[in-house]
Amino acid sequence: MNVKFTILAIYFFLCAAVATGAEQSEAPKIHLMPMPAVLEQAPGKFRVHADFGVTITGANDERLPSAVARMLERMERKTGFFLEEAANGKPGFQIHCAAAGAALPSLSTDESYELEITPDGARLSADEPTGILRGIETFLGLIDIDEESFFLPCVKISDHPRFRWRGINIDVSRHWQPVEFIRRTLDAIAAVKMNVLHWHLSDDQGFRVESFVYPRLHGVASGGDYYTQEQIREIVSYARNRGIRVVPEFDMPGHATALLVAYPELASAQKDYEIEKSVGVFDPSLNPADEKVYEFLDAFIGEMTGLFPDEYFHIGGDETTARHWNANPEIQKFKTRNSLKTNQDLQAYFNRRVAEILRRYGKKMIGWGEVLHDDLPKDTVVQAWQSKPVIADILRRGYPAILSRGFYLDHMRPASFHHEIDPFGGEFSNLSAEEQSRLLGGEACMWAEFVDRHNIESRIWPRAAVIAERLWSPAEVRDTADMYRRLEYMEKELIIQGLIGGGDSWMLLRMTPEANSDSFRILTELLKPVILSERQRAQKYFTDTPLNRPADILPPESRAARRFEDMVNRALSKPSISKDDAAEIRETLTRWQNGVRAAAPALSRSFLLKEMIPVAENIDEIITLGLDALRFIETGRRPSAQQREKARVLLETAGKIQAETEIVIVSAIEKLTVQ
Amino acid sequence: MNVKFTILAIYFFLCAAVATGAEQSEAPKIHLMPMPAVLEQAPGKFRVHADFGVTITGANDERLPSAVARMLERMERKTGFFLEEAANGKPGFQIHCAAAGAALPSLSTDESYELEITPDGARLSADEPTGILRGIETFLGLIDIDEESFFLPCVKISDHPRFRWRGINIDVSRHWQPVEFIRRTLDAIAAVKMNVLHWHLSDDQGFRVESFVYPRLHGVASGGDYYTQEQIREIVSYARNRGIRVVPEFDMPGHATALLVAYPELASAQKDYEIEKSVGVFDPSLNPADEKVYEFLDAFIGEMTGLFPDEYFHIGGDETTARHWNANPEIQKFKTRNSLKTNQDLQAYFNRRVAEILRRYGKKMIGWGEVLHDDLPKDTVVQAWQSKPVIADILRRGYPAILSRGFYLDHMRPASFHHEIDPFGGEFSNLSAEEQSRLLGGEACMWAEFVDRHNIESRIWPRAAVIAERLWSPAEVRDTADMYRRLEYMEKELIIQGLIGGGDSWMLLRMTPEANSDSFRILTELLKPVILSERQRAQKYFTDTPLNRPADILPPESRAARRFEDMVNRALSKPSISKDDAAEIRETLTRWQNGVRAAAPALSRSFLLKEMIPVAENIDEIITLGLDALRFIETGRRPSAQQREKARVLLETAGKIQAETEIVIVSAIEKLTVQ
Repeated sequence: MNVKFTILAIYFFLCAAVATGAEQSEAPKIHLMPMPAVLEQAPGKFRVHADFGVTITGANDERLPSAVARMLERMERKTGFFLEEAANGKPGFQIHCAAAGAALPSLSTDESYELEITPDGARLSADEPTGILRGIETFLGLIDIDEESFFLPCVKISDHPRFRWRGINIDVSRHWQPVEFIRRTLDAIAAVKMNVLHWHLSDDQGFRVESFVYPRLHGVASGGDYYTQEQIREIVSYARNRGIRVVPEFDMPGHATALLVAYPELASAQKDYEIEKSVGVFDPSLNPADEKVYEFLDAFIGEMTGLFPDEYFHIGGDETTARHWNANPEIQKFKTRNSLKTNQDLQAYFNRRVAEILRRYGKKMIGWGEVLHDDLPKDTVVQAWQSKPVIADILRRGYPAILSRGFYLDHMRPASFHHEIDPFGGEFSNLSAEEQSRLLGGEACMWAEFVDRHNIESRIWPRAAVIAERLWSPAEVRDTADMYRRLEYMEKELIIQGLIGGGDSWMLLRMTPEANSDSFRILTELLKPVILSERQRAQKYFTDTPLNRPADILPPESRAARRFEDMVNRALSKPSISKDDAAEIRETLTRWQNGVRAAAPALSRSFLLKEMIPVAENIDEIITLGLDALRFIETGRRPSAQQREKARVLLETAGKIQAETEIVIVSAIEKLTVQ
Repeated sequence: MNVKFTILAIYFFLCAAVATGAEQSEAPKIHLMPMPAVLEQAPGKFRVHADFGVTITGANDERLPSAVARMLERMERKTGFFLEEAANGKPGFQIHCAAAGAALPSLSTDESYELEITPDGARLSADEPTGILRGIETFLGLIDIDEESFFLPCVKISDHPRFRWRGINIDVSRHWQPVEFIRRTLDAIAAVKMNVLHWHLSDDQGFRVESFVYPRLHGVASGGDYYTQEQIREIVSYARNRGIRVVPEFDMPGHATALLVAYPELASAQKDYEIEKSVGVFDPSLNPADEKVYEFLDAFIGEMTGLFPDEYFHIGGDETTARHWNANPEIQKFKTRNSLKTNQDLQAYFNRRVAEILRRYGKKMIGWGEVLHDDLPKDTVVQAWQSKPVIADILRRGYPAILSRGFYLDHMRPASFHHEIDPFGGEFSNLSAEEQSRLLGGEACMWAEFVDRHNIESRIWPRAAVIAERLWSPAEVRDTADMYRRLEYMEKELIIQGLIGGGDSWMLLRMTPEANSDSFRILTELLKPVILSERQRAQKYFTDTPLNRPADILPPESRAARRFEDMVNRALSKPSISKDDAAEIRETLTRWQNGVRAAAPALSRSFLLKEMIPVAENIDEIITLGLDALRFIETGRRPSAQQREKARVLLETAGKIQAETEIVIVSAIEKLTVQ
């Protein structure tokens, strides 16, 4: 698929141009995320009233009427209207699909669509049903409200994805996720036009699929939490109806402790295995020198390919330690016999054997970056997640690739970090067109060391929407401020349409003996959780360690802190600070300080909040510092050396990780103090 | 069931007594709703950690293990722990049920239980599984948090309901409610120990049950929204597992428009019928003089009794206008022939015939108050909803009764109003014990003229919990302040345990072009929706009129306004106002005024909020008035006659219904002005 991108300048140009339009003085802003490839805004609005209706013409594909029914339900939530599908000649939405689609979504599915909104109605057309699904999401995202009615701004959109593979990897091994969550996630990722659920179904901490061929896999290796085959079929079909592929991952030869609990005879080291309760990288591994292993995999993969119809099959392949290989004389002999010099060579042998099995079942193999090896079959897709191999290496060596480096949701990075990742930017900008074309797309990764079924949603959303945009929209969509503006609207959309719950306020509630969490909610503006590696450094975590502390519940990114940082940058960019800017900064800092002080009693009354007491004290101190600094800036006086030293120490202390959280206003306050 | 109530004084006494206890200086407060019949608090706490487990002994009833599994899931939400059922000798929860229960809950089900919490663990025992279900709810409600851990206060509870029938009537005809909502509601009503879902399945606006015998009932009379028989069976079983009876209501002979759309030959007036889209009382009625009607009812009831196993069957019977009877000469002749003098006599004849059919199917009849008639079979249950007949009449005339008057959730009354209803208080206090014993209990009513599937939850919860308490707890539980304190905790419980969504913030979001609703959220503290009759007076409503205006979304009761009223009452009860009280009042009024002024731009930008502009202006004005009045009080000066007259006019204006809402701080401000 060779896609030409049209610069979005036309959108920004027209935003200004329609300012002279008939209906109003200012063109309504577009809140869409991801931004379409080409969007032209025209004057005028299509007004949506309760008589709105839909007509579907063209191809007869069962996915279309069900998609329209779902659209109407979400639109009813958005408007409060009771909508009937039939347009009955009234103003509405005409949908035309040229041809019925393939039974299953695939990499060759055409997702492009054209959507035109005029004052008289909306017209959506696409060559395939999946294009219609994507266009419906755009339609829903365009519905807005003004002083007169619900409406859609007049636009002409010609849209198609930049990359064909746009997914999210959900780890259900380290913490179990119920089937309702998977279903809900499929709806939400469809809303941001993603098209792959990468389902990480096995790891050291649990094997999550029912197997009739090897019943100990779910009977013993799951610890009781697994998906039945019926549930999997239902999920695959649910995903298919939303234009989403389901790619299963069974991690091998490493990350296989749970599997080896069920079938220890397949292990590289003969010993008793127990389901891993810690998190990290562990030694248990399938024995690549044992034919039994390939017989097992043949039968198991045969069973699984009957469940997962997608043409790709993920074998993991990451973080194999080889310690058990080195300790096993049979494996060493096997290496010698087969001229496998290194353990990498041995893993490559294993991968080739698995690839052969997969090929026999008509599947293409995917593996994490570590599978890259000169012996790797050239049709294997390599998913880049570490610094090595970088995506450019993989592409240059001729492999199709998926990018996940920079898209790890568990790293608790701000949305801007993910948005700024450009697969072909920077050092990779000199890739040839052919090399570039091998990049199929990318995937956000939601590893589950620190998410359970209660907090996972707040770790995925809204940030995954930004990764979805990076993979769908033209590379030119890079304006961070506009991204954040649209992200807030996208979050609003997901909440209104019922696709996400809108935060963890109930998890805040449970932390306090009071009937509400008002008094300490302020902390959610001032703190963020730290990255996984820092949490593991702070204490030993197990899969049954409760995830009920502030670090588990605080949002990964504080909207208020981001605004404050912008405010400080703006204020300090001027030759001298304006009175208004200073007042605004002071007001924010004072509100925070009062809030933090008012929170103190609540913190001391709850064992889950107590660890925030010293953190709150640090916040209080640096706010005082910020207010002092502001006065220095306003008066033009300079702090004494002693004052400067004290500030440095305070900021250093406040900048340290405490209670597995970070204070998010340290850098902005530091900027004030160094003026 | 003759129940003896023990005064709760023992609880209040012990709250004070344990203040000298070993573990801490103050006994933890009990947040339960409904309050148990007998609760003795002891010093100490049972501390709940992640090793908590449950053991079940005694009778083997399938409802017990599934109830424990659900309990653990809700407890996991409440604590964040990953809990295993097996106690493995660790401190935990011992459950003992003496005997397996009857397959179905009924009026004779024993719901009593004993629950003891000691520092070493919890012990729950009951004679029947339903008692265990009720005790589990109490256990969950007792879980609290302090500076050390999650815990339960040490208590000894001996609990049983005051009334055997404690239900909620859900009208699914005027607005459809999906099966997920019914399921969710069953979980929530179980949490407040209610035991009846009264399912109002037919009315003028739609017939909601699949019928194989009369397929036009769902095919034509439902407008497409109905429950399949499979769904109904699933709901009945879901309810049964939670100790809840499902009582179906099919309204007849009036409120039958939808039925007559399907089978017009059964009508009192031969004409074309259409599903009613308005709300109100309508003339269409089954023809009580036509044998065909009884044949139809026989076959239909026969089919329905196969679906609804409960021994009671509700036939409605309310608001039959008789206009079509008067206009039909055949019906007039029939009356003469059968010596039926009045239309009441005719309806009584109809009711007797229906009662006979029901009796043949082993069912007891229930009807709304209007069915009361000397010819009514004495085992008919009469549900009192209007001022006439009052509950005392029904009981004195020998009928079993259910009280709903005072329990209408659509009346948008404050929780205190419902809590203060006492079936045997006031004028009914002189009922004999035998007469009193005929009162089976009561039901909250959620009529659906102004609720759709989006806003219904906020109209039921948390207020229904108060009605549940009135019907479960001893009559002595009457402290309004304590009720409100516990109600806030009960709402917190329902939210944390995932049984309700915790408000309509998403519905506020959809009203504004901004990404958040922060700017006008203040209105939810200052306004409430008006009662149904006032809304109908304001404009003509249809079943497809969008319920998306502030009046549809504002909470029925403002916690903040209630607190303000308390604050004003307290301040004015002293000989002269204290400085602190005045400051608190001023702070609240000023915060509100600033909030309302800040909301103005948002209001003007949304067609759904625009109608709030004059309301917000009125609020602003009376707040100014309140602040002025406060100054008068503080200084001891008196306003001039002119100022008083201006205040009177302002308050009168602000006290009027606007945009189908009421300003809830008018009375408190009036109190300030008349000092």
